[in-house]
Amino acid sequence: MAGTDSGLLAPTWAGTPVARAVEDEAWLRAMVDVEGALARAQARLGVIPAAAAEAISAVDAGRIDLVELAERSRAAANPVVAFVPALTALLPEEAREYVHRGSTSQDILDSATMLVVKRALGLLVPDLRRVAAALAGLAERHRDTVMAGRTLGQHAVPITFGLKVATWLQLVLDALDRIKALVLPAELGGAAGTLAAYVEYAKLSGVDGGVELIEPFAEELGLAVPVLPWHTARTPLVDVAGALQIVTGALGKIALDVQVLSRTEIGELAEPAAEGRGASSAMPQKRNPVLATLIVSAARQLPALVSVLAQAMVAEDERPAGAWHAEWQPLREALRLAGGAAHTAAELVEGLEVFPERMASTVDVLGGAIVSERLNVALAPVLGKAAAKKVLGAATAEAARSGRPLREVLAEQVEVDLPLDDLLDPARYLGAAGALVDRVLARYRLST
Amino acid sequence: MAGTDSGLLAPTWAGTPVARAVEDEAWLRAMVDVEGALARAQARLGVIPAAAAEAISAVDAGRIDLVELAERSRAAANPVVAFVPALTALLPEEAREYVHRGSTSQDILDSATMLVVKRALGLLVPDLRRVAAALAGLAERHRDTVMAGRTLGQHAVPITFGLKVATWLQLVLDALDRIKALVLPAELGGAAGTLAAYVEYAKLSGVDGGVELIEPFAEELGLAVPVLPWHTARTPLVDVAGALQIVTGALGKIALDVQVLSRTEIGELAEPAAEGRGASSAMPQKRNPVLATLIVSAARQLPALVSVLAQAMVAEDERPAGAWHAEWQPLREALRLAGGAAHTAAELVEGLEVFPERMASTVDVLGGAIVSERLNVALAPVLGKAAAKKVLGAATAEAARSGRPLREVLAEQVEVDLPLDDLLDPARYLGAAGALVDRVLARYRLST
Amino acid sequence: MAGTDSGLLAPTWAGTPVARAVEDEAWLRAMVDVEGALARAQARLGVIPAAAAEAISAVDAGRIDLVELAERSRAAANPVVAFVPALTALLPEEAREYVHRGSTSQDILDSATMLVVKRALGLLVPDLRRVAAALAGLAERHRDTVMAGRTLGQHAVPITFGLKVATWLQLVLDALDRIKALVLPAELGGAAGTLAAYVEYAKLSGVDGGVELIEPFAEELGLAVPVLPWHTARTPLVDVAGALQIVTGALGKIALDVQVLSRTEIGELAEPAAEGRGASSAMPQKRNPVLATLIVSAARQLPALVSVLAQAMVAEDERPAGAWHAEWQPLREALRLAGGAAHTAAELVEGLEVFPERMASTVDVLGGAIVSERLNVALAPVLGKAAAKKVLGAATAEAARSGRPLREVLAEQVEVDLPLDDLLDPARYLGAAGALVDRVLARYRLST
Amino acid sequence: MAGTDSGLLAPTWAGTPVARAVEDEAWLRAMVDVEGALARAQARLGVIPAAAAEAISAVDAGRIDLVELAERSRAAANPVVAFVPALTALLPEEAREYVHRGSTSQDILDSATMLVVKRALGLLVPDLRRVAAALAGLAERHRDTVMAGRTLGQHAVPITFGLKVATWLQLVLDALDRIKALVLPAELGGAAGTLAAYVEYAKLSGVDGGVELIEPFAEELGLAVPVLPWHTARTPLVDVAGALQIVTGALGKIALDVQVLSRTEIGELAEPAAEGRGASSAMPQKRNPVLATLIVSAARQLPALVSVLAQAMVAEDERPAGAWHAEWQPLREALRLAGGAAHTAAELVEGLEVFPERMASTVDVLGGAIVSERLNVALAPVLGKAAAKKVLGAATAEAARSGRPLREVLAEQVEVDLPLDDLLDPARYLGAAGALVDRVLARYRLST
Repeated sequence: MAGTDSGLLAPTWAGTPVARAVEDEAWLRAMVDVEGALARAQARLGVIPAAAAEAISAVDAGRIDLVELAERSRAAANPVVAFVPALTALLPEEAREYVHRGSTSQDILDSATMLVVKRALGLLVPDLRRVAAALAGLAERHRDTVMAGRTLGQHAVPITFGLKVATWLQLVLDALDRIKALVLPAELGGAAGTLAAYVEYAKLSGVDGGVELIEPFAEELGLAVPVLPWHTARTPLVDVAGALQIVTGALGKIALDVQVLSRTEIGELAEPAAEGRGASSAMPQKRNPVLATLIVSAARQLPALVSVLAQAMVAEDERPAGAWHAEWQPLREALRLAGGAAHTAAELVEGLEVFPERMASTVDVLGGAIVSERLNVALAPVLGKAAAKKVLGAATAEAARSGRPLREVLAEQVEVDLPLDDLLDPARYLGAAGALVDRVLARYRLST
Repeated sequence: MAGTDSGLLAPTWAGTPVARAVEDEAWLRAMVDVEGALARAQARLGVIPAAAAEAISAVDAGRIDLVELAERSRAAANPVVAFVPALTALLPEEAREYVHRGSTSQDILDSATMLVVKRALGLLVPDLRRVAAALAGLAERHRDTVMAGRTLGQHAVPITFGLKVATWLQLVLDALDRIKALVLPAELGGAAGTLAAYVEYAKLSGVDGGVELIEPFAEELGLAVPVLPWHTARTPLVDVAGALQIVTGALGKIALDVQVLSRTEIGELAEPAAEGRGASSAMPQKRNPVLATLIVSAARQLPALVSVLAQAMVAEDERPAGAWHAEWQPLREALRLAGGAAHTAAELVEGLEVFPERMASTVDVLGGAIVSERLNVALAPVLGKAAAKKVLGAATAEAARSGRPLREVLAEQVEVDLPLDDLLDPARYLGAAGALVDRVLARYRLST
Repeated sequence: MAGTDSGLLAPTWAGTPVARAVEDEAWLRAMVDVEGALARAQARLGVIPAAAAEAISAVDAGRIDLVELAERSRAAANPVVAFVPALTALLPEEAREYVHRGSTSQDILDSATMLVVKRALGLLVPDLRRVAAALAGLAERHRDTVMAGRTLGQHAVPITFGLKVATWLQLVLDALDRIKALVLPAELGGAAGTLAAYVEYAKLSGVDGGVELIEPFAEELGLAVPVLPWHTARTPLVDVAGALQIVTGALGKIALDVQVLSRTEIGELAEPAAEGRGASSAMPQKRNPVLATLIVSAARQLPALVSVLAQAMVAEDERPAGAWHAEWQPLREALRLAGGAAHTAAELVEGLEVFPERMASTVDVLGGAIVSERLNVALAPVLGKAAAKKVLGAATAEAARSGRPLREVLAEQVEVDLPLDDLLDPARYLGAAGALVDRVLARYRLST
Repeated sequence: MAGTDSGLLAPTWAGTPVARAVEDEAWLRAMVDVEGALARAQARLGVIPAAAAEAISAVDAGRIDLVELAERSRAAANPVVAFVPALTALLPEEAREYVHRGSTSQDILDSATMLVVKRALGLLVPDLRRVAAALAGLAERHRDTVMAGRTLGQHAVPITFGLKVATWLQLVLDALDRIKALVLPAELGGAAGTLAAYVEYAKLSGVDGGVELIEPFAEELGLAVPVLPWHTARTPLVDVAGALQIVTGALGKIALDVQVLSRTEIGELAEPAAEGRGASSAMPQKRNPVLATLIVSAARQLPALVSVLAQAMVAEDERPAGAWHAEWQPLREALRLAGGAAHTAAELVEGLEVFPERMASTVDVLGGAIVSERLNVALAPVLGKAAAKKVLGAATAEAARSGRPLREVLAEQVEVDLPLDDLLDPARYLGAAGALVDRVLARYRLST
């Protein structure tokens, strides 16, 4: 067929709800919906007969041959020019004159795009909310679960798993906020944004149907009322794309952490098990972090896709020759990757296996050096800042070299009397971790 | 020296205010400011002596050797580790113990970054407002100035120059809104985000200095209070970058339109003249649209720079080994390109030369075909939609081929009696252009 | 279905040959081909029975349910794990043990990818060659057709249309060279690149089947022999992507020029006419440069897609968890956009309408100022460099202001006696344009 | 000053050789060199006096005020227009007429860019060769050092450290090849690529100086002879950028592996120790992989920068208004990041600490499960493929659950008599690792 892509190379979204909501068929359905909404809005103003609007609204998009339409789109560089006669052909004779009245391709396609975006986000947001709820649960449950904090790949100081999860939750709440803040306007401008043909057709019926048409049209679509046609004022679309990359960026950070913490040598987390999931074709012992992998692979793609949409803001004239056309496929791919990532993330975090005992043993793997910062604070006032750091540097290096516990080396090398039981206990060096978790949970509760 | 870049290859920002606000020296100054704010906040809690905080706040950043510091940054992969001793060396003996207490490199650099961003935006926004004001004036003045609307590079239907400018204004208002919505938080987390060393040092003074430190610290900096350390929750930074690309996207669209409309063959606009500006080294007749060119070149770079920042959200552990480090230079470049573009745009639109007569003559260059859409609306009810389009297609093609006026061809080929004087007047086919201009102007007035 | 995309939003490639060559079905077919080639190579070494290899090679990929396979790919984050049992189920009982022997998902998918790339390039290159041939013809035909040279959108000095086309041809020849230089290796490494399971299975048959397997496997596939498994040495793939962006960059430059030169006010070129092509749904006079638009929209997307593949070089371990998975869809999209662009470009340049008379009249639109550089060369030795430039600047400005011919103004203002007939003739100021065209044509002839 | 950047935010390149070779001053020096080369080439043809050429060649670029020049570049949107008078002012009176004869800004800046690229690569390549040499040594030394192979973060099958290093070496050799294949042409075209003013000036001296000038000019610069002016045929520049991203992609993969393998829990590699390197400001035990971090941060930026250059191929007219101008800064940043990364990588791999004993112990951390693929090969012929995989899946899971050695579980659960001593020895399941290392070393030797 026409170069068909069903997701074989995109397991992040193959078969997920958002992917279905943005497939070609969904876009076609939205185009029909837009023509219907336009007709109903014009009927409300008295520009066309109500019966015609009803007939247009009743068309079944499924009767249009999608593949043929796609191929015929090449002649106009957009699918609308071929779509209008295909749609018209499905109408009763008496309604045909009234379809697409005064309209232009970009009005239809941009409005359809916003409809598709709205529907896709309607599926994505519940998955993100599931992620947030699961994370809130984990953060609460593991508020005080001690584990190693790692920076630049090295053990730094102790943290709690709850704090790590709280950071994940913070990101997901940010993503939800960015989506909530989106404004999705209908597009209505006519050939060059003046609404001239809409006005002209309305005049035939003796009514005003220019700016007067904007509100009912947006209302019929359930979209926001635009101040102005945005044929070349593409902020709404770049905002959508920007929000999607916050979604995958947030989920990508979570997924990357899951990958690190489920490494064979670390083993503090595991993805939820499922029949066949994470299996290798040849290595029976393998349980690959596939959900996280699907999410990371999406997160690696979004910024580039978004950059295409941002670049398309630089659009010449009243409607540009190329910039607009470059937006469609990257936007769709961004939607389905973000949607697939959210769907996958919900599965991942809801079933995430946490191994607190492994965390507890790992935090001590350096024999106490993970609290050297604290020892430094304790010693600095006694020995001076520089001397303290030097002594501790030597002691931790010696402990690492010899494999002896830091406590032993310290007892030997530091003449100061220190409460080492207390100082070397990771659970007593968690700072404000608990309180920080509570701050994010409070934000979460406010958001629901 | 150290690979110094003073803008020789970046005329968009060379010598502009924002460029100065984000140079290395400005960042260094901000780092000193952050250490001062931290000390003052700790002094307010009683963690360190007020005198020490004063001494730290009084340091002159200009005394630190910038080039040496830059080179020494390689040893820690960030400038803070070498900066702290350099700063300490400038302090009186008794204050030295109190500098950078409990802190970590990322707290200092992230907070300094937000300070720099805030200062840069403080310079960028007034330039953007100048752009908006100038555009509002142009839109008002040219509310009814008729010109050709162009889509895919071809004359489409008439528009007004006011409507075109209104679209530009709409974009600039969007950009201002995106900047206004930004939240610029201070960063405070300590080594791994638990605030542990801050707490520990505070305990030495018998006070609570963990989450309690966040508010006074943010307050001293004039930055927002973070819910959580955002070492690896990078939404605030991606939001900044995203807003900057809306700025250059908006200005880039304007600049591209100026370039098109000042083409030799079109000549409807010209950049403001200035001694030597737009000159060619060899072609005396040349007056290049250099301001627009500077802006377009910025707009072509931002999306890629932003994609680096968006990608950096995917950051492992409590502080990542590379993702964070990849953010700094792209963010700075994005700031100075956007700042330079705004500065340049203010100059461009404030002095833009508009040639309404040229617009008026160009709109007729096709001998009337620019209103064929209107003729179509008039003929469709009489001849039927398809027949009308066919007749008009043939007539406009014949007019184009023969060079005869469309009116003449139409009179010959169309038997219907039409009010051609009215129908062929571009000024009578402007739809709702005026009302749309008014809508944007209303938005503008609300925003000021 | 599974989020199916048939190109409705991608008219650049909808229905074009390369799009078909890279659809899901094509990838699936290639995966079957790879398993067949592996089996035949192993049979040649005596590792498995020849009959089994034949049976595997005979499988009809069309019998595997693509949509189901795509959805099941989520469980392993790649399609191969679910593909192997689906393939096995289509084999006769006695061959089943021998399929995918010793192999790993990435060996199959990477090799299949290279097969698909090879097939796609096999369709793309002839279209590019058509473009080159058509351009060579145009360059020859218009070697001496004078037109305005434009820089920064302004008339600069005269050029020939032949020279412009020669520059286009130079780019297309570069693109063809980059493709020709590609090396497309088979992938063979086993689970972690050691070939261990291949060796182990071969041992069961008492033969050496490790590095010995590489050559026959590559030979069966018609792919290059790799030095090493390239599971995480992704240069071959980044090279492919890089070549594709040279293709669309080259064609994008051509298309953008066509758009400029077919602007209503310029009209020096027109896209080939075809029934319904470039039509607007509402403006009968419109003939949009749709082919160029399709090409430009592709050129605007490739660099971002390529950046994803380049980023994926940063891949951890023996096989990474996300970087590899992020490559597939962007590579496919890059292939079909480049393929669609080449197909479209062949149509565009083969039928390009050139209007030399319009070019001739436009070159004089500034009344002679287009040769002011030449006047400068003539006057500089007489008046001095600076004075000459000043005088000419004033004269061209005066001519522009008053609308009088430059010749007249010059006669008035310059006291030097100059051969103005000669100096003001654009056709006598073409420099080495002809010789430069010949240089590119010589390169073209060498390349065919 | 003018927004000066000395590398404070770019520790990857601060103070490294390539950074110095691409600083503003270096570009300015190259511009002077180009004017000198042009003059000498014209003198060779007899177009200008040899003495003038000598005088121009003798100018000290250091006498031009860089910051002022940068700011004045805004008036022409490029630095050359202001540079020419600044250069002229430094010449003896009698040479002034002969500088920049017939030239255009882009000829000078593009040629200067290629000079700078050539000089920068001249410093980058030796560092890359040091990397290759060090890797070849490591690959040889560790040809048979057994370690865990990891895929998707999980232990897969055993590999050798030599094989891992061989993959790194393969990438570095690829990068060196890509650089070697670059063609760096001089740029010579004049105002619109016809060479017209060069021809015209030559005629004044009665000589041919159009295409005749190309070769001597390129020769004087030590650059390649272009077929055609490449003002808008930007393949050479995109090729440079593409090669640079192969450099950082290759080094980024190495660096990421070093980061993973020097993780606290893995500890199989460590960066070379140096006084103060990798230190934390507060955690004495820390030894951060800073060299790898610098490299990774570069690798994360290059693809985006390259995308700007690739996008700039889409350039309208004879010289574009923005696309050209967008290239300069991203190219420079790409050069210095790649150069800094290569410099850093040489230091990293030359001093890399390898811990074979840690590798040996880690390979057994799963109690033998790392060879389950091999057990599978052994059992499949006996039990059948599916049954074997099932049995082994259960056994490895049981071993993981219970912490008992796989051998023990297997002995219990599998009734087949297997040579478990042999089968469970990772060192006997290395496939063709050694032979593969030898293949890459052979390639390395051929390349030197």
